Amino acid sequence: MVDRQSFSYKDSGVDIDANAVWVKRIQSAMGSTYGPRVLSSAGAFAGMFRLSNGNRGNDYKQPVLVGCADGVGTKVLLGIKAKRLFGLGIDLVAMNVNDLITCGAEPLFFLDYLAVNKLDPNALLELIEGIADGCRQADCALLGGETAEMPDLYAKGDFDLAGFSVGVVEQRRTIDGQHVAPGDVLIGLPSSGVHSNGYSLVRRVITANKLNLKKKFDELGETLAEAVLKPTKIYVRDVLGLLSAYRVRAVTGMAHITGGGLAENVARAIGDGCDAVIEKGSWQPPPIFPFIQKHGVKPAEMFKVFNMGIGFILIVRSRYAAGVMRKLDDSGASPHVVGHVTRGTGKVRLR
Amino acid sequence: MVDRQSFSYKDSGVDIDANAVWVKRIQSAMGSTYGPRVLSSAGAFAGMFRLSNGNRGNDYKQPVLVGCADGVGTKVLLGIKAKRLFGLGIDLVAMNVNDLITCGAEPLFFLDYLAVNKLDPNALLELIEGIADGCRQADCALLGGETAEMPDLYAKGDFDLAGFSVGVVEQRRTIDGQHVAPGDVLIGLPSSGVHSNGYSLVRRVITANKLNLKKKFDELGETLAEAVLKPTKIYVRDVLGLLSAYRVRAVTGMAHITGGGLAENVARAIGDGCDAVIEKGSWQPPPIFPFIQKHGVKPAEMFKVFNMGIGFILIVRSRYAAGVMRKLDDSGASPHVVGHVTRGTGKVRLR
Repeated sequence: MVDRQSFSYKDSGVDIDANAVWVKRIQSAMGSTYGPRVLSSAGAFAGMFRLSNGNRGNDYKQPVLVGCADGVGTKVLLGIKAKRLFGLGIDLVAMNVNDLITCGAEPLFFLDYLAVNKLDPNALLELIEGIADGCRQADCALLGGETAEMPDLYAKGDFDLAGFSVGVVEQRRTIDGQHVAPGDVLIGLPSSGVHSNGYSLVRRVITANKLNLKKKFDELGETLAEAVLKPTKIYVRDVLGLLSAYRVRAVTGMAHITGGGLAENVARAIGDGCDAVIEKGSWQPPPIFPFIQKHGVKPAEMFKVFNMGIGFILIVRSRYAAGVMRKLDDSGASPHVVGHVTRGTGKVRLR
Repeated sequence: MVDRQSFSYKDSGVDIDANAVWVKRIQSAMGSTYGPRVLSSAGAFAGMFRLSNGNRGNDYKQPVLVGCADGVGTKVLLGIKAKRLFGLGIDLVAMNVNDLITCGAEPLFFLDYLAVNKLDPNALLELIEGIADGCRQADCALLGGETAEMPDLYAKGDFDLAGFSVGVVEQRRTIDGQHVAPGDVLIGLPSSGVHSNGYSLVRRVITANKLNLKKKFDELGETLAEAVLKPTKIYVRDVLGLLSAYRVRAVTGMAHITGGGLAENVARAIGDGCDAVIEKGSWQPPPIFPFIQKHGVKPAEMFKVFNMGIGFILIVRSRYAAGVMRKLDDSGASPHVVGHVTRGTGKVRLR
């Protein structure tokens, strides 16, 4: 026992008052994402969100809620190093809502968890504003979150962030891959770059080759920091716009291309009775991928870890494929037909 | 550029195959929490949860979804040190669902985010099983989650975890404190101990006094590790059981006592037109609180940081207070009348 000494929470590295200031500053970012369905008030223990658009009755006959949790991996470490935090906020939302829409769900709201060494409101506000921007792109509300100061768990200047999103879909409109059938067509939507997976490998390549993040490379047409930290594309409007145009089941499966690349993620979207064939020559990977490859990653490993330029796959009944391509083209989604479904046992072949 | 060298994702510290094994092992823990409303299948991009109990129609006329995000703070560091991870899983669920029920919401599902230095399935399975146990106590489904290996962000053996939960409440049954009125009675439910807030201070006290976590202290009646790592009480069944017994608004507000203690959290539960008075002598704080205090924390700071033995407060119309007390007693919740509401300006006075 220590005599005459007294410990306070603030001495221990946690400043409740600074936290109150921070909470105020993020409220306007949150407010920018609110629609009429948000019911909660600032300071509440939990965020409240009305399921129906109208004030009375219910828009869904058999609502199915869909939930996702995801982070952005070690892309945070690159973002911190390059002092580019806004994009990480968009990445965080993207990783979650792009998963959510694979079920056919409309994103409703998002919550974030931010764990920091020390709360630096000026630096971190940029991150929250990125999250709010991502939420606006995904038409969902930033309903709440948690910011935790943990000086003994995170190194100085470091932080980690996790996100969580909830959506809803009418039960008979859920998409879970069980209707995928031989003959279906795989339509790929371009990624904006590496998105948010494979950054332990990206960072390894940068370190081992002593690459300068601030250097502008001719083959990239921009600095390395700009190329590797480009925010993940959010596919919500393209995909939900398309789905709402069909009353029939034109889209039978969808895959968000994350860790594991095209093969592993498309495998999650098809049933056990089908295979998928993906034609690697049917699109042109953006320059960041050949750039990484030439700095020491084998081609097979590239396809196992990265999206290689296709961030989202729709599996479409062949009779609707032309119409789907046209609609996606019209919405500016730049789709490519990248493969098709055959009879099989749940495998994906890249050729 | 490095000649002849080739980098793989596994070399970079991320083992996708080990992750696949881990995913399999947590599926049985998740399955133990599933009811008939869970629709999703393993390996899906997102978890699906049917809002209605019946297969047809909708149980809610105007469903309001409620969402929370929270972590367990630096209690993780103590849990890691003492090798007691199961309880941390319960803490994680508790921190979220106890927030959720303050709105009157029924918890539906939970998702976790676990970020680790290195995936050690044997050690971390205990944590996931704790999360599943917490979900069963809260009658909600562990619908999914994300495990991220980030060797460069977390020190060896360290991890962080965040949780997210979603609930639902009929709109006319939401509780948001706007009906709190002078004369209402504050009923406190006992905490199991420190719960999951204030651990930077707890750890400071332990370190500065060189206290041994494994030592059994007479005044605690158990080891220090047991006392400070006791899992957070989950109030879901006590509170929802009580609410379902009333068709009228017997409960006008609720507060989960977290960081900021009784004063700050009860203030969040009352409107601007009321004050609350809490009588500090109306319950007996469990031994861990005087223990911490005598090792160097001032009484006022104790009340600002810790729950001091009351983990949850219900604000109840006085005419229903006796009935509420009886019902909570019958359910084994051991309630105490700890104060009352007066006219005021949103302040909370402890006396």
